[in-house]
Amino acid sequence: MNMNYLKMKVINQHTKHSLRFRDLGIDTNQELVVFMPASCHVCKSEGFQALTRLSVSFNGSAIIAALNITSDGLLHEGEISLSKSAIQKLKVKDNDLLQVAHIEALQSMTHVRAKLYGNVLNQQQYDEIIQDIADEKYSNIFLSSFVAACSGTNMKLEEICSLTVAMIKAGNKLEWGNEVIADKHCVGGLPGNRTTMIVVPIIASLGIMIPKTSSRAITSPAGTADTMEVLTNVNLSLAQMRKVVEKENGCIVWGGSMKLSPADDIIIKVERALDIDSEGQMIASILSKKAAAGATDCVIDIPVGATAKVRTVDDAISLTLRLKRVADYIGLNIQTICSNGEQPVGYGIGPSLEARDVLAVLQNATDAPKDLRQRAITIATEIIKLVWNMEKQPAEDLVIKQIDSGEAFDKLISICEAQGEFHEPKKAKYCKIIESAGAGIISEIDNRKIARIAKLAGAPDSAEAGIDFLVQLNQDIGSGQPLFTIHANSPGELEYAYEYYKQNEKQLIKLSYE
Amino acid sequence: MNMNYLKMKVINQHTKHSLRFRDLGIDTNQELVVFMPASCHVCKSEGFQALTRLSVSFNGSAIIAALNITSDGLLHEGEISLSKSAIQKLKVKDNDLLQVAHIEALQSMTHVRAKLYGNVLNQQQYDEIIQDIADEKYSNIFLSSFVAACSGTNMKLEEICSLTVAMIKAGNKLEWGNEVIADKHCVGGLPGNRTTMIVVPIIASLGIMIPKTSSRAITSPAGTADTMEVLTNVNLSLAQMRKVVEKENGCIVWGGSMKLSPADDIIIKVERALDIDSEGQMIASILSKKAAAGATDCVIDIPVGATAKVRTVDDAISLTLRLKRVADYIGLNIQTICSNGEQPVGYGIGPSLEARDVLAVLQNATDAPKDLRQRAITIATEIIKLVWNMEKQPAEDLVIKQIDSGEAFDKLISICEAQGEFHEPKKAKYCKIIESAGAGIISEIDNRKIARIAKLAGAPDSAEAGIDFLVQLNQDIGSGQPLFTIHANSPGELEYAYEYYKQNEKQLIKLSYE
Repeated sequence: MNMNYLKMKVINQHTKHSLRFRDLGIDTNQELVVFMPASCHVCKSEGFQALTRLSVSFNGSAIIAALNITSDGLLHEGEISLSKSAIQKLKVKDNDLLQVAHIEALQSMTHVRAKLYGNVLNQQQYDEIIQDIADEKYSNIFLSSFVAACSGTNMKLEEICSLTVAMIKAGNKLEWGNEVIADKHCVGGLPGNRTTMIVVPIIASLGIMIPKTSSRAITSPAGTADTMEVLTNVNLSLAQMRKVVEKENGCIVWGGSMKLSPADDIIIKVERALDIDSEGQMIASILSKKAAAGATDCVIDIPVGATAKVRTVDDAISLTLRLKRVADYIGLNIQTICSNGEQPVGYGIGPSLEARDVLAVLQNATDAPKDLRQRAITIATEIIKLVWNMEKQPAEDLVIKQIDSGEAFDKLISICEAQGEFHEPKKAKYCKIIESAGAGIISEIDNRKIARIAKLAGAPDSAEAGIDFLVQLNQDIGSGQPLFTIHANSPGELEYAYEYYKQNEKQLIKLSYE
Repeated sequence: MNMNYLKMKVINQHTKHSLRFRDLGIDTNQELVVFMPASCHVCKSEGFQALTRLSVSFNGSAIIAALNITSDGLLHEGEISLSKSAIQKLKVKDNDLLQVAHIEALQSMTHVRAKLYGNVLNQQQYDEIIQDIADEKYSNIFLSSFVAACSGTNMKLEEICSLTVAMIKAGNKLEWGNEVIADKHCVGGLPGNRTTMIVVPIIASLGIMIPKTSSRAITSPAGTADTMEVLTNVNLSLAQMRKVVEKENGCIVWGGSMKLSPADDIIIKVERALDIDSEGQMIASILSKKAAAGATDCVIDIPVGATAKVRTVDDAISLTLRLKRVADYIGLNIQTICSNGEQPVGYGIGPSLEARDVLAVLQNATDAPKDLRQRAITIATEIIKLVWNMEKQPAEDLVIKQIDSGEAFDKLISICEAQGEFHEPKKAKYCKIIESAGAGIISEIDNRKIARIAKLAGAPDSAEAGIDFLVQLNQDIGSGQPLFTIHANSPGELEYAYEYYKQNEKQLIKLSYE
């Protein structure tokens, strides 16, 4: 190596690599983005263009981020910035010196291309793709191409098995040291369907371990974690969760921090933005989460309806068959239920209103929503059948006994206390009763529009906000009869939700024989 | 309508819609991005999340942009910002009041989903997709899913026809009022292959109209527009271009501002970032641009080689057959040529060095690159055969006569003068000769790595920078013999290019019988 070359190395180390960090405070959600000024010598000499994927490293750790180029003095020559998510990953602060470099092509994208060209991928190929996604090496356009490659019915059954296994491998797996771990899952899309908070205490009160991790709302007015949070703390560490489960046989905590199937959390956001359904991805998503949470026996509720996630019975049957085959492959014992998904469940839609319904069912209140109670009984009965290998009638009798005797209610309170403190649900400050403009029989309810009103009223961030839904399909309605109540914590949100209702009145609740 | 409702409308108009613009100077390339602070009441009440697609309007025009959420006081409550591209579209300045709103789902994404699920799309469906893309309604993840849906061999021939027609419809179409309009195209990937600047003056000097629009480099060290720009102005308006063509029968201008097949310009960037090949997209891209430019007769050069775009003769044959079928469908007369794509063409790689080679060929200089001359002759001959329906030999004789007589050179100078002023190519300030470390016969040359060295030396932004490539495949090389010269305008760039060469010496030029 001659002196010229040595000098050059030094020049490059100096001019090519180090850039001073300055936080611009830009949140690009999960996508890792790096910002560099158009004047940057590194951009120029490396030929970096907007969207180029770069390696950015600091203090021994490195991320891969997509480049956005800034101008107009937002960043100066020699400065660099990162999106919120990237800052958290690298743990940098203002004036830290970061290194940037070109990255080699992502090897696993070769497999995604092969899949797009019609090839069937094997376990190792799915492992490599999913590990890279979990490591946040895929930019949004790469994720989008992977979602597209796996969309519709493009995946063979063996590929869904491989994808599921890959997703489990790429995350944490909880171990409970118990032979039987029960779990339940609902294939989303039905407002107010808060059965988990009834099923878990029933099952736990019968001595079966059911350590439930739940999600927060992403596009809905409430997730189970949001509703449970009305009653108690749901942000538990794994160690805290273990203590609750050891004491009470069950828990209902937020699963978001547990890193169960983290690749799935990333994929699902792009899938939702694209509104692309993939039966394969859905199956891998559900089963990988259950297996990672340590479940051995799981009941899966599939609501079927025109505005639910699964729209026809045929789709539900196809989904059931594939779910069972993949569950068999990964050694998970499952039972599916097709339920009616044509209208909201219970009265309340929104965290506090749903929590109130849950308590009413478990307290055997006279005004408790019968449909919510019945759905919870059906699911709990299937869990008992699965775990104890019982016939339906004695299993159902057991379940009903746990509710009627108040044992399930006591168990919920005990679980809440073990997780933190128990709080009664509160009421919103403002409400408005919506009355029917016409008379007739309710022939259709649009779940998605109902959910939207609850969100506009403030749910789930404003826990007390939402809707109390007072009518059902096939009910005979008179003009002026109350249909639902909107609850909100500010007059603005109340009116905003009401305006949306007025604009969508006709499609929201359809009447026949008017 | 009661007073309460009226009041509410006013509240909403005020609180929901208007946000004050402030430029943050962020360039996200072609993707339209809107920035709003996390504290924004509109984000909260509408439930906007990062990546949500919003309608942003000002002064009667509207765009659809993806949301990034800012924090840390970069934007304040009530403020909004946009990416460079979005600012240009909306023509906003600081303190303008912008309106934001939710958008309805993109109807044409339904067709993309259908395509992903294995359906064959019809003309109207491609029309709707491509029009939405041309209107910049697709975010990057949507574009990525469309590219994925059309990748590999997923498109039937009739779909490629529909896509081509849709791309033509969605842009401008140039009309020349002439029965025959000649054109040429090269399926990219070969450094130094600057035949256009030789072919156009030959053809124009024979009285055939050839109004050529060319592209700038995107990932290569030079595009034809970059190389032509060394000699004259290439940024012509359509009216200016017409004047040149009326006077000289030909021109070589930058086509980027002509809006010929604008959807293709958008799709191609995502395709490149994904590195996904799609024969269908490539065919539609090439033929839509030619048809939109008004061509009636076009010769397409397909270089075949391990590091060229088309890698095998089989691929070239398949591409040729489909190109012909689609060209027939849209009424374009084409002829393809499979050429050797295993090494760079001519000596120079980089705008000025390539321009020098072009002039040498047209001036019949003794040191003119023979391969570049021969390639230009082959292409020009095919154009003559196509347009005048001639046999090969007399056509080739005509072409050679135009070069040897100097008529083609005179025509190039006339075209340059009609487009602006003619300038001689300049030389770079610094250069470094690279000598062979070993002896042997050159068995392989990596076109992509050669191009990368030229780019690191500063091409195409620094027009004089690049490489002079001095050897050829199968040439017998002695140790210490010059292989190529690196040209740069700064010592830093020179050394930077050199360092890359040293790191890649072994793969760059392979010798056998060492």
